Amino acid sequence: MNNNPTILIIGGVAGGASAAARARRLNESARIIMLERGPDVSFANCGLPYHIGGEIADRERLAVQTPESLRELLAIEVETLTEATAIDRAKKEVSVRRLADGSTDTIAYDKLILAPGASPIVPPLEGIQDDKIVTLRNLQDMDRIKAAAAEVDSVLVIGAGFIGLEMAEQLKHIGKQVSVVELQEQVLPQVDPEIAAPIAAELRSNGIELVLQDGVAGFKREGNQITATLNSGQSLTAGLVILSIGVKPESGLAKDAGLELGARGHISVNPFQQTSDPDIYAVGDVCETADPILGERAAIPLGGPANRQGRTAADHIFQGDKALEYPGSLGTAIVRVFDLALGSTGHNERRLQAAGVDYGHVTINAHQHAGYFPGAQNLTLKLLWDKKDGRVLGASAVGADGVDKRLDVIATAIVGKLTIDDLCHVELSYAPPFGSAKDPVNLAAFAACNIRDGLTDVVYEFPTDEDTQLIDVRPADLAQIRPIPGAVSIPLEQIRSRLGEIDKSRPVVTVCALGKMSYFATRILKQNGFNAASVVGGLALVPAPGK
Amino acid sequence: MNNNPTILIIGGVAGGASAAARARRLNESARIIMLERGPDVSFANCGLPYHIGGEIADRERLAVQTPESLRELLAIEVETLTEATAIDRAKKEVSVRRLADGSTDTIAYDKLILAPGASPIVPPLEGIQDDKIVTLRNLQDMDRIKAAAAEVDSVLVIGAGFIGLEMAEQLKHIGKQVSVVELQEQVLPQVDPEIAAPIAAELRSNGIELVLQDGVAGFKREGNQITATLNSGQSLTAGLVILSIGVKPESGLAKDAGLELGARGHISVNPFQQTSDPDIYAVGDVCETADPILGERAAIPLGGPANRQGRTAADHIFQGDKALEYPGSLGTAIVRVFDLALGSTGHNERRLQAAGVDYGHVTINAHQHAGYFPGAQNLTLKLLWDKKDGRVLGASAVGADGVDKRLDVIATAIVGKLTIDDLCHVELSYAPPFGSAKDPVNLAAFAACNIRDGLTDVVYEFPTDEDTQLIDVRPADLAQIRPIPGAVSIPLEQIRSRLGEIDKSRPVVTVCALGKMSYFATRILKQNGFNAASVVGGLALVPAPGK
Ligand SMILES: Cc1cc2nc3c(=O)[nH]c(=O)nc-3n(C[C@H](O)[C@H](O)[C@H](O)COP(=O)(O)OP(=O)(O)OC[C@H]3O[C@@H](n4cnc5c(N)ncnc54)[C@H](O)[C@@H]3O)c2cc1C
Ligand SMILES: Cc1cc2nc3c(=O)[nH]c(=O)nc-3n(C[C@H](O)[C@H](O)[C@H](O)COP(=O)(O)OP(=O)(O)OC[C@H]3O[C@@H](n4cnc5c(N)ncnc54)[C@H](O)[C@@H]3O)c2cc1C
Ligand SMILES: CC(C)(COP(=O)(O)OP(=O)(O)OC[C@H]1O[C@@H](n2cnc3c(N)ncnc32)[C@H](O)[C@@H]1OP(=O)(O)O)[C@@H](O)C(=O)NCCC(=O)NCCS
Ligand SMILES: CC(C)(COP(=O)(O)OP(=O)(O)OC[C@H]1O[C@@H](n2cnc3c(N)ncnc32)[C@H](O)[C@@H]1OP(=O)(O)O)[C@@H](O)C(=O)NCCC(=O)NCCS
Repeated sequence: MNNNPTILIIGGVAGGASAAARARRLNESARIIMLERGPDVSFANCGLPYHIGGEIADRERLAVQTPESLRELLAIEVETLTEATAIDRAKKEVSVRRLADGSTDTIAYDKLILAPGASPIVPPLEGIQDDKIVTLRNLQDMDRIKAAAAEVDSVLVIGAGFIGLEMAEQLKHIGKQVSVVELQEQVLPQVDPEIAAPIAAELRSNGIELVLQDGVAGFKREGNQITATLNSGQSLTAGLVILSIGVKPESGLAKDAGLELGARGHISVNPFQQTSDPDIYAVGDVCETADPILGERAAIPLGGPANRQGRTAADHIFQGDKALEYPGSLGTAIVRVFDLALGSTGHNERRLQAAGVDYGHVTINAHQHAGYFPGAQNLTLKLLWDKKDGRVLGASAVGADGVDKRLDVIATAIVGKLTIDDLCHVELSYAPPFGSAKDPVNLAAFAACNIRDGLTDVVYEFPTDEDTQLIDVRPADLAQIRPIPGAVSIPLEQIRSRLGEIDKSRPVVTVCALGKMSYFATRILKQNGFNAASVVGGLALVPAPGK
Repeated sequence: MNNNPTILIIGGVAGGASAAARARRLNESARIIMLERGPDVSFANCGLPYHIGGEIADRERLAVQTPESLRELLAIEVETLTEATAIDRAKKEVSVRRLADGSTDTIAYDKLILAPGASPIVPPLEGIQDDKIVTLRNLQDMDRIKAAAAEVDSVLVIGAGFIGLEMAEQLKHIGKQVSVVELQEQVLPQVDPEIAAPIAAELRSNGIELVLQDGVAGFKREGNQITATLNSGQSLTAGLVILSIGVKPESGLAKDAGLELGARGHISVNPFQQTSDPDIYAVGDVCETADPILGERAAIPLGGPANRQGRTAADHIFQGDKALEYPGSLGTAIVRVFDLALGSTGHNERRLQAAGVDYGHVTINAHQHAGYFPGAQNLTLKLLWDKKDGRVLGASAVGADGVDKRLDVIATAIVGKLTIDDLCHVELSYAPPFGSAKDPVNLAAFAACNIRDGLTDVVYEFPTDEDTQLIDVRPADLAQIRPIPGAVSIPLEQIRSRLGEIDKSRPVVTVCALGKMSYFATRILKQNGFNAASVVGGLALVPAPGK
């Protein structure tokens, strides 16, 4: 590479702009050209829903940088409204089309960085080509949705993933009637169902209509209204439809240039973000990187990975193999839905099952900070580990507060290859407003070790067989007010004196509100010779049958 | 050990009660006796200041468990108002005195767990024996202070550590005039001075008088008022004095019994919390455990370690050497002071210097969550690492929000022996209300690696030599409104075109508001052949001379 190399970047937002900025800091004399199809660069994609809902009032705040500021601060040649249309790897040249006048051109590169992102999936359904059926990816989409939303009373959101739910929440904030349709039987199919369940309840209690396990068969426009017919036959009518069923990598250019793609169409890269052509890098939503947990491939369309992958590509261009490798993506993600937050890191059960991993899992409920301090609220934390060696494989959590902190701790633990034993003793900050002497992360690890060590047996659902004795160990008054069908009430503090009432020849399952008292009860029963197990997470996690 | 061993526990709060609870869960048939000198067990020591200030309104909330609940739920024999007075290791017997009637007794043990905690240090100063000079350790102290505070207008807090500042804040909440005296030249001497500085400002801006670098020489009582004379000669008068200058381990019993103590009088234990007598364990504030970072000893008087050490002792009694070891303490700690939080984990500069470690450090300023999302506030994060291998050795942070999260992430990183390289890529949860695509932890690690890799040179203070050219790279308007004495203003975006104004033969130091723009400027200057460095943390961290 010569002393004044030309770094050409396709895509000017998260991955592309990060690469450009780091490249400039590493090298003052390189020519850095950034091509962007749209009119904007460096905007906060992740903030788009919040401007529609008015929570980010000032549109300008979404421009993290502008073409001008990138030129001024970083001497980057920014070409907006310029689309890359082909890559000639032999000539090391990219063909471009200037969208303002339709003119074309070619630009030579020494190193090419592909950061074109991903585009919203638009399935080929009947009636889908309609200006009232929209997707959200950039500021123009945002402006369009904001304007359209102002003129309608009701909005139909298709897809209950992260973006779909952010949109549902924000549209509700501005007074719309909102329905959400999701093909899976749960919202947020990225996380395990029991962790997502409180979010469904939160949406409903905020007046959002939720239709689960149903897909859209087609749309019909009548006047200003769109009617979506669902697979079930049900139909829903709204003034505006937001499609948010996922994204697909914009890897067309790469594919046409013969670069290696992964199974789902993402560009394959090595830990320096190099594609199969060493002069071409790919970063962000378009690429597929390592899954450091399972040693497989991972394509994670999120802002953090895009930013840091962009930085990695720049590092490798100027530092060569001494550059810091991108270690792969865990998929740490979070979403706020009204008063709750939900997130996850690493793998969920479905993924681990698919990979054939023999994993254990437990879910605990605990306060996010000292229970005796005002504002204590429940946090539900699920931890998954490898039965082989206790290594943490993933976690998910839901609650009003403190979800992000616990996920971040566990994400860091995954990077450190920590085990559930290690997590028993991670020493987290504790003062009453911030945590507890035993943080929920410690408690989840305790509970995990207790299962692993056979101190307790657990079930994850209510027993359905006739033989099993279900014992409700909650305080007597609670058991009376809200009895659990089929359960005998023996409050925890009476168990030792009432063992005679339980049949030792039949299995016993204990249940309580949060899963803690039933664990205590199970310990007593097991040591007294009973075949006992407790319901993980208690009623908070597994609502009693008939509820 | 026989099948129904007697586990005797001295001390019934954090460490003692945790050991008792875990012991019972591990063994239904053991006799578990817990001796407590005071009338209460299992109370929330950490909540005491907040009841005095009314933030925890209900006193009963501070009783996490009661003697009755421990008996009912865990079948623990709780003996309150019972003081252990001697340990006979040969006979495996403890002498006790019942404080209600002064009677004495002996209790035999198979295993003994010492969890007597630590007591507030009361220096032998003139006039210190006065009922208006108090310390805070238990509910009785709390009641006494609450009652006394109600009758005075002003309170003098001696010692600006965690508890001292919590008390100062809470007393201010209930309208008292509060002065704080601290011997060191900073508040919170546990953390590096620049991180503690915003807390001093926060205290002062909330109307608290702060006297630093001055100690109390003696007290004088006049009527209802106490006057403290300071070493400087200054005197302060208040209706009530709270002594919070630290704690010392209650290791008298252990010492008398010939157990091995550490250099500062704590009981030495192994990773199973066993003392030099294998049948005697020590947990909590009274013991000295491992410092996993430096491989030395650590005595950390905090709730988390006490709870988990108690659990460890119980584990070892019933599981033997298969039990999970206590890995030592990092000293992760946090405190809220009005609208700010401050905390640290691992080691600070003073400690690393004392240990002769060749460490690097950097401090960054960043928003706690996306800057474009409402509520973004500055967070200051300091990271320390081993220059030998990049391993993270410690961190401290101060800010309005998100301090606990970053410390917990870094505490976990320390457990995983992660390096600053690893922290560049920890993948933390990001959605606008929770974080940023590049989390402050990532940014601190980037900045650390940039220093380590020689991409930038840094200074931690303003240059004082005549030769060095100080360049203020902030926007021109800011530089004009609040000029930095001795600095030439060249806004970042003009640096490239105004290089000719800077003397290449003399050193250059760049400065900005937060330390980021000056880093960018330094990169430009270095690549243009200047001997340049930037002021770490900018004006936010190192106020300009003359300010
Ligand atoms: C509404 C919304 C909310 C989100 N919320 C979050 C969140 O809370 N947290 C999170 O981590 N992530 C979130 N994301 C995802 C995050 O924004 C993306 O992962 C990230 O922006 C990907 O970066 P990228 O550089 O790969 O692609 P992008 O940021 O999408 O940038 C790609 C750019 O390339 C341009 N481009 C494409 N093809 C060409 C071409 N041929 N020529 C020229 N230019 C081209 C596109 O116009 C686009 O501007 C959100 C995304 C959206 C849309
Ligand atoms: C005001 C205050 C605020 C705090 N805030 C925090 C915080 O925010 N975060 C944090 O992590 N930590 C905090 N701590 C520290 C934390 O409470 C202690 O680290 C923890 O309680 C130590 O547990 P322990 O079991 O060793 O001792 P303790 O909890 O103090 O229990 C020891 C008990 O043993 C009894 N005892 C002593 N000697 C005998 C004897 N000979 N016979 C019988 N009984 C005996 C004592 O009466 C005492 O009740 C705070 C402490 C105080 C006082
Ligand atoms: C903003 C953008 C252009 C990247 O710019 P950037 O300069 O690399 O990123 P930041 O502004 O976060 O600054 C990071 C740099 O400043 C340094 N830095 C930050 N704070 C610092 C401080 N207080 N002291 C010293 N250095 C600091 C970091 O080390 C890093 O420099 P390096 O990469 O050379 O190590 C790009 O991220 C972008 O376009 N973002 C918007 C789009 C987006 O991210 N979307 C998805 C999420 S909404
Ligand atoms: C409360 C106290 C008596 C200890 O009791 P404890 O039962 O060990 O502690 P907790 O109530 O936190 O419960 C933890 C136990 O419940 C289990 N648990 C907690 N939530 C659970 C859930 N949802 N599902 C299953 N198990 C759960 C944990 O695994 C642990 O059991 P284990 O040790 O056998 O693994 C003791 O900590 C105490 O006295 N605290 C007050 C004083 C104090 O700590 N002061 C300093 C800080 S203010």
